Amino acid sequence: MTIGYRMRHDESTNREVGRAVIATQLGQQPADLTDVRATNLAVVLGYVRGHAPCSRADIAAATGLNKATVSSLVGELIGRRLLRETGQTERRIGRPATMIVLDGSPYAAIGLSLGPDELHLLAVDLSGQQLLSWHRAVRAGAPSSVLAAVAAQVRRAQTRVHDEGRTVLGVTVGLPGLVDASGAVRVAANLGWRDVAVRDMLRRTLGDPAYPLVVENDANLAVLAERRYGPYAGVQNLVYLTGGPGIAAGIIAGGQLIRGGLGYAGEIGHVPVDPAGPECACGRRGCLDACASVGALLRRLGRSPGDDMAPEVDDVIRRARTQEPAVLAALRDVGRHLGHAASLLANILNPEVVILGGYYVQLAPWLLPAAHEEMAERAVAPDTGGLRLVASALGTDAAAAGAAAHVLDSVDTGQLPIAASS
Amino acid sequence: MTIGYRMRHDESTNREVGRAVIATQLGQQPADLTDVRATNLAVVLGYVRGHAPCSRADIAAATGLNKATVSSLVGELIGRRLLRETGQTERRIGRPATMIVLDGSPYAAIGLSLGPDELHLLAVDLSGQQLLSWHRAVRAGAPSSVLAAVAAQVRRAQTRVHDEGRTVLGVTVGLPGLVDASGAVRVAANLGWRDVAVRDMLRRTLGDPAYPLVVENDANLAVLAERRYGPYAGVQNLVYLTGGPGIAAGIIAGGQLIRGGLGYAGEIGHVPVDPAGPECACGRRGCLDACASVGALLRRLGRSPGDDMAPEVDDVIRRARTQEPAVLAALRDVGRHLGHAASLLANILNPEVVILGGYYVQLAPWLLPAAHEEMAERAVAPDTGGLRLVASALGTDAAAAGAAAHVLDSVDTGQLPIAASS
Repeated sequence: MTIGYRMRHDESTNREVGRAVIATQLGQQPADLTDVRATNLAVVLGYVRGHAPCSRADIAAATGLNKATVSSLVGELIGRRLLRETGQTERRIGRPATMIVLDGSPYAAIGLSLGPDELHLLAVDLSGQQLLSWHRAVRAGAPSSVLAAVAAQVRRAQTRVHDEGRTVLGVTVGLPGLVDASGAVRVAANLGWRDVAVRDMLRRTLGDPAYPLVVENDANLAVLAERRYGPYAGVQNLVYLTGGPGIAAGIIAGGQLIRGGLGYAGEIGHVPVDPAGPECACGRRGCLDACASVGALLRRLGRSPGDDMAPEVDDVIRRARTQEPAVLAALRDVGRHLGHAASLLANILNPEVVILGGYYVQLAPWLLPAAHEEMAERAVAPDTGGLRLVASALGTDAAAAGAAAHVLDSVDTGQLPIAASS
Repeated sequence: MTIGYRMRHDESTNREVGRAVIATQLGQQPADLTDVRATNLAVVLGYVRGHAPCSRADIAAATGLNKATVSSLVGELIGRRLLRETGQTERRIGRPATMIVLDGSPYAAIGLSLGPDELHLLAVDLSGQQLLSWHRAVRAGAPSSVLAAVAAQVRRAQTRVHDEGRTVLGVTVGLPGLVDASGAVRVAANLGWRDVAVRDMLRRTLGDPAYPLVVENDANLAVLAERRYGPYAGVQNLVYLTGGPGIAAGIIAGGQLIRGGLGYAGEIGHVPVDPAGPECACGRRGCLDACASVGALLRRLGRSPGDDMAPEVDDVIRRARTQEPAVLAALRDVGRHLGHAASLLANILNPEVVILGGYYVQLAPWLLPAAHEEMAERAVAPDTGGLRLVASALGTDAAAAGAAAHVLDSVDTGQLPIAASS
């Protein structure tokens, strides 16, 4: 989400008027801030997140809220243990000012990303500090058994953070597939699922928890993570391509996550890039997924993507380092197809940055040269409309980070926790 | 632009707080409403545009502004001759209420769309009522001579509206090409232009006018017209495909016009749809433009798109009606390629509606069946993610309407005229 601090004092009426321009990203949780005080609390919290340590006077100056209002809002946020005073003071002109920072020590946000062969769970505190990071192998199978494993990990994480005296702010689960507004998966080819009410099933299994539970496409979460933590955090037109068994895009355009009419935007894996290419799991031929996913790369090199791709990818890298011609040719072809995909995005959306994620990060040295060449050749705008095609700096699993970030985003847009557990 | 009326009365402070959520569409004219009164004036004006005739009490109830504030705002807007009282009153409970409607009689918005063979100029008043609609043939050529013809038409329209006692609110010019934030054209293949400072040249030729002068991509303007006037006006995810010598897309996603990093979004004409297809003007082979533009259709049928496409298109329709096999086959192929393009949009953006514009409107009965078939086959989401592919209801030239609408949009986002000329 984006909050702009368009607060100002209206001279004519002598009142403070807040016009925080808030763009909600995830249709599932529209932050309809009908309460002005909640808006203002969120504005103050967001300001401190970006500018801590800061004083009440700093907040008032930056937001345009008057000092009495800021004091009242900061008091409430300290009461909710979202902010705390540092004890540290700063002397500028006049009285020394008490400095304020994020607290959030009694809270935890849980993000989880589910792939065909493993899940990754992250818990972070309100400042984004990591509390837990678990990788677990998951056996592909029926939704009920996979989701039981997901729920078991969430419960375990809940217990751990409760034991540390923390309240769970929310849980967001990312997975590769078409996720509709109700949190149901319509199609998830790489999980082998179709029409699964994931959110409802998890909610039931977790005993109808009080915190918000959100299910979201993993590429969407990854691009949110890039926007919150990555080196291109300020960029308004940003696309993330997942590099796992399949390829999907998370798209931010004009500063906003693009979800489309039903939440199905970003399925770039099934655009055709090579009419003579291999058959795709979707039944068509020559899809980007079938030609350029990391799964397709491994299959082409005679490996089975199987249960755990990491050692297979390591093996490809080892063979590439020894200049094995078949491996270098395969990587060059994958790079070309990724460049083709980037040129489609350039022509249609003119993004500033396209980020290759997942296993593409490690493979990038071999993929990027061919990708850059192909992209420049196919894009219609001079200099590819300024597009930079780069590898993610967030490592192979941005989706879990994005899932946790999504929980923090919802707090920043005004879904404040009622009370801490301790 | 979009203004949401999120006004409410804050009980705790007994003040009215407006939180109009305003999304600017055109980067060229960011409506940074730093003045609260300007925001409120725009909110009142926008409300009356949608709900006239209405009373001051209606406005107060809908916007959450208190009645004294509404009276003052309405007074100012009447003073600026943007609103007027009808004389008509409505008696509900209590005192009869004087009804208010848009005035704008002393104002005119001028929109102009420039194609390779003609220009279309529209002037409308503030309520969108048409004042002028001129079509003029334009001889393709050097930017200086074409833009001199454009400026001559604008000056003529200015004189006409001045003679009627109106002030020009603004002039927006649309053309087919990559237009950057400064109003310069980087590439306009169908005009044969490259790196032309269109806005600067027009501004000089027009003697540095006081009104805002904007140059914009014509597909972007067409989709804005669809959003303001078309049957899909409320739709948040909407794409318009231009049907002239070339194809470009105007994209609204998440309620926002998508411009991309440099304003080059929407160049769908140069995505490849047929590797064995004809050579494209851009130097590549099998681009959508080369396979499915109306210009390509005419060339395939042995006609020269030439100076005026309308009679050529009429001839194609006549031959299609007599079931001429070559014509039916050509239309079916164009339809298939358009379905392919729609499936790319469906996979990447999941739009709710894709609108075929320009000459496609007349050709739609022959294009749509093949297009629907191809689209359903290629899109990955069930039922094409809910996408409807339809012909525009706005006729062949939505861009001029969109250009005029763009001027009105800028008024609605708070760029109010200083004073009327009479």
